[in-house]
Amino acid sequence: MNEKEALKWLATRMPVGDDCYVMDWGESHLLLTTDMLHQTTDFPPGTTGYTTGWRSVAVSLSDIAAMGGEPKALVIAYGNSQFDLNSLEKFIEGAEAVCDKYGTRIVGGDLDSHEELTVVTSALGEVKIPATRKGAQPGELVAVTGDLGRTAAALDLFEKGRDEKANELFQFTPRVEQGKKLASLASSMMDISDGLARSLHQLAEVNDVGFRVTADKIPYAPLLDELTGSEEEKEKLGLFTGEDYELLFTAPEKHEFDLAKYGSTVIGKVTEEGVDIVRGREVSPLEDEGYVH
Amino acid sequence: MNEKEALKWLATRMPVGDDCYVMDWGESHLLLTTDMLHQTTDFPPGTTGYTTGWRSVAVSLSDIAAMGGEPKALVIAYGNSQFDLNSLEKFIEGAEAVCDKYGTRIVGGDLDSHEELTVVTSALGEVKIPATRKGAQPGELVAVTGDLGRTAAALDLFEKGRDEKANELFQFTPRVEQGKKLASLASSMMDISDGLARSLHQLAEVNDVGFRVTADKIPYAPLLDELTGSEEEKEKLGLFTGEDYELLFTAPEKHEFDLAKYGSTVIGKVTEEGVDIVRGREVSPLEDEGYVH
Repeated sequence: MNEKEALKWLATRMPVGDDCYVMDWGESHLLLTTDMLHQTTDFPPGTTGYTTGWRSVAVSLSDIAAMGGEPKALVIAYGNSQFDLNSLEKFIEGAEAVCDKYGTRIVGGDLDSHEELTVVTSALGEVKIPATRKGAQPGELVAVTGDLGRTAAALDLFEKGRDEKANELFQFTPRVEQGKKLASLASSMMDISDGLARSLHQLAEVNDVGFRVTADKIPYAPLLDELTGSEEEKEKLGLFTGEDYELLFTAPEKHEFDLAKYGSTVIGKVTEEGVDIVRGREVSPLEDEGYVH
Repeated sequence: MNEKEALKWLATRMPVGDDCYVMDWGESHLLLTTDMLHQTTDFPPGTTGYTTGWRSVAVSLSDIAAMGGEPKALVIAYGNSQFDLNSLEKFIEGAEAVCDKYGTRIVGGDLDSHEELTVVTSALGEVKIPATRKGAQPGELVAVTGDLGRTAAALDLFEKGRDEKANELFQFTPRVEQGKKLASLASSMMDISDGLARSLHQLAEVNDVGFRVTADKIPYAPLLDELTGSEEEKEKLGLFTGEDYELLFTAPEKHEFDLAKYGSTVIGKVTEEGVDIVRGREVSPLEDEGYVH
């Protein structure tokens, strides 16, 4: 059983469909989420302690953002083979920096001796009316925040030894601010953790709909032009490599103007079925392939 | 810098003094805690998937219990080299069994390919008036729930290949029920994660007090008599080996009767300074030694 199959099995036993768990809490809702990151799959050689801390926290904030929530507090479990003050301090600095930016804080944690650097962040959030993955209707718009391919570009730069620029790109912005605004407009929303292609398929499946996106409307990170030689290569990095943590959402057409105002780009439409991409006059299926952790 | 020093340093930057973080939330308080467990240090050969799941959840429930809280929801990050349905299913069964027992549930999680089995549970709890580590006064009683040395006994049994009994002992009872009742009587409370000796020293330091405990009042797990050859050996396992997750607390003398009613044993008194143990007529210092993860 691989990770994907295991997740499918878990979904039969617990409510794991959305980016966070939503709990009724008086007149509001609490959100709870957890994410595990570790050296071999998430932090390539060259990743600084600061970036490690930033990214560890930001992935959980992104889950809160995907529900339109306000982050309230985070706890971090940090396992490493040694606790030298320098790398731990840098890690905490990076983690606190992204918390500060969104008015939240790290309130506790656990330290553990662990052969491989392993970080698990868990976040508590609050939201009046949560945005969920379910609700997309054929005819609506589908849109994304920011631009895609930054993580793919960073991975490429790490390989080339351009660590400074790579670290900068790796410190992504969790879309907490946009998430809160978009929650009232979006009919369905999620964050893109495994690449746009896979996320579109996931959203299609949950909503029993399809998508038709237009290739030249998809916003790519400007750096992808410099790093890739062809449009095909660029698409590969921008569509199928994940971990960009932008928001993917659907919304009724009447909100088109507001979406642009909130830094989002409409990339296509919700259809009855199938996930297709339009390149010029050619329509072809967009494969359900993505980043495997 | 070792784990203990790193924790000390962290305490200067974030509120990590108690078993959970306490957050004002309307007329109530939310509790948040996280714990990392992994193969090499926490799950000896012979530990079943069921026990692994049980223990992973129970450590976080114990943190909630130590504040007198009611567990509300848990998220689990589970990393393993493979996700065979059998071991994952057993893990979830064990995790759900202990949740069921305390009226809470696992509401989400993260699965990750990881070379070493690594589990991080994070729990959300609620409490009207939290019990904290601070508040002990000289002259008060010091007491523990349950009995000590079960984990030490289990580790010994695992080594001897008596896995069935070892697994049974390893599935400890998080003291959620007692914690709720004791919270209104206790002046300070914590769970014993690194052995009674270390926990007494921690509580002494936080409260700027001392303790004098009486050796023959300390409740040991009955099995320790069978597994050890001398009183000294028994004390070593019962006082200095940790991970029993019983509650250690102080309370005014007038509550003595109620403490017994709630399954607790008074083991001594709060003093002005020093952590001592009385054996017959002899008083000696109880060393600040404990289980190192």
